Amino acid sequence: MSESLQDYLKREQDRINSFMLNLLENDDMLPDTLSESVLYSMRAGGKRLRPILMQAAFQSFGGQGDKALPAAAALEMVHTYSLIHDDLPAMDDDDYRRGQLTNHKKFGEATAILAGDALLTRSFSVIGQADDMLPEEKVHLMTYLSEAAGAAGMIAGQTLDMEAEDKESTLRELEQIHNLKTGKLLTYAIVAGAYLAGAKPETIELMKQFGTYIGLIFQVQDDILDVTGDASVIGKPVGSDEVNKKSTYPKLLGLEGAKAQMEKYVAQAFQCLEQANIKDSRLHELTIHLSTRTS
Amino acid sequence: MSESLQDYLKREQDRINSFMLNLLENDDMLPDTLSESVLYSMRAGGKRLRPILMQAAFQSFGGQGDKALPAAAALEMVHTYSLIHDDLPAMDDDDYRRGQLTNHKKFGEATAILAGDALLTRSFSVIGQADDMLPEEKVHLMTYLSEAAGAAGMIAGQTLDMEAEDKESTLRELEQIHNLKTGKLLTYAIVAGAYLAGAKPETIELMKQFGTYIGLIFQVQDDILDVTGDASVIGKPVGSDEVNKKSTYPKLLGLEGAKAQMEKYVAQAFQCLEQANIKDSRLHELTIHLSTRTS
Repeated sequence: MSESLQDYLKREQDRINSFMLNLLENDDMLPDTLSESVLYSMRAGGKRLRPILMQAAFQSFGGQGDKALPAAAALEMVHTYSLIHDDLPAMDDDDYRRGQLTNHKKFGEATAILAGDALLTRSFSVIGQADDMLPEEKVHLMTYLSEAAGAAGMIAGQTLDMEAEDKESTLRELEQIHNLKTGKLLTYAIVAGAYLAGAKPETIELMKQFGTYIGLIFQVQDDILDVTGDASVIGKPVGSDEVNKKSTYPKLLGLEGAKAQMEKYVAQAFQCLEQANIKDSRLHELTIHLSTRTS
Repeated sequence: MSESLQDYLKREQDRINSFMLNLLENDDMLPDTLSESVLYSMRAGGKRLRPILMQAAFQSFGGQGDKALPAAAALEMVHTYSLIHDDLPAMDDDDYRRGQLTNHKKFGEATAILAGDALLTRSFSVIGQADDMLPEEKVHLMTYLSEAAGAAGMIAGQTLDMEAEDKESTLRELEQIHNLKTGKLLTYAIVAGAYLAGAKPETIELMKQFGTYIGLIFQVQDDILDVTGDASVIGKPVGSDEVNKKSTYPKLLGLEGAKAQMEKYVAQAFQCLEQANIKDSRLHELTIHLSTRTS
């Protein structure tokens, strides 16, 4: 890996954005307001973490070319729909996201609901219309996306998260919520990438575990940044978990305890990679990157 | 067809309900409130028109057994999600649906949004996990469902419908809205049924046209019932289109004109069936049924 992680991230971001936005800009969406609302949220930036993890997993298992791009784009569209709906007044009621007005603040609630619905709906045909995948692969990935994003996955996590507001959770409950709310889609990214590169079932199982740890690492660092972070770097107010009375890792374990917990997750994630016979990969770098990120 | 249409409708309704509810009741939805909210709307009854049209099309082209059931269930789930979201305060703001409280009135807005999201998401894996379909058939139906329900289909129709409120529309605009909002899914029902029974591409094209007429017939009768219907039979207040200043067929063409327009659509629908070499079928009966229904 002569290319730095920073350059790699930038390159993959550009590649994903160009594929995904090109596709949506050429869609026949009606009327213009719906199209504008969809594109507003898709163009709002974001780190494209999920598609990059998919690409990295795909490449770590020897995958080459653009085969995983449609699945990566579909996943980012599902992630974006979930942000649009989570921001709604009836849900988390957020006015800003990624430094700009949330979708419903800009386009109104009705359009925001429909834009979210449109992105979720579209994500499946993005995979269905992929050029380089076999029908079996498409069915597998569409079905798995439905499960990871559904009522036993991401949607369950969001519902549990809302129910947990204003109430103390145990570490076990906290892990369950995060595993569902963010872990399932992060795991999807990694497993889909490995699957499309032809990884064997037993390796896929290890990558599922790896994905779970990646989800937990992501969340602990999120909680830590809410205590120690710089609002101008994170792009949202620091201390909001305190205001929302949310259970967090630092609250349950103390700041040092949370950091120690994360080290444990990182070690377990690396162990999965070792067992899957993946060495010195972008997945290693991304694990470290996620555990030390400042935004 | 020795069995009466009434008996046929009842038998297919039962068959679809039993397949669909059994599937959702056995799903691992989390938490209980989400599962209750999803099942509340799915159990609320409704005529199951779309799945029945799919079964009828499937059978009219010689299809036998349960092959089309998963696609029929998926379609009804997409229809139900769209009703849950359309009823939301930010959208049509309805308190009652099928004689009972709307989902958000019963479970709150956040849960209703998530229950709708969950049904839409789940619909794709229902097809993905179907027993009797080839991978190619699954990919085709999942992709086509995404298109029919998406931002160039049903969601476009709902968005245009909201934008058209409180404003005069032409007959052409009205047809476009209805064709998108209800026609696309009704057409999906018919085309998917024919496809699964092995209909040829040129026949599929004819069934697409047939589906469009079925959608228009459905809508004209809806508008007529809003003027002439019996509120206790329809299950919603009569005259609501007048209150909402909505453009309708009777308003644009007069009541007699609307009825004449419907006769024209019925004749055109029958012509499609004739060209597709379908004679004396349930699809004929259902066309008449839809154009004369009282609820």
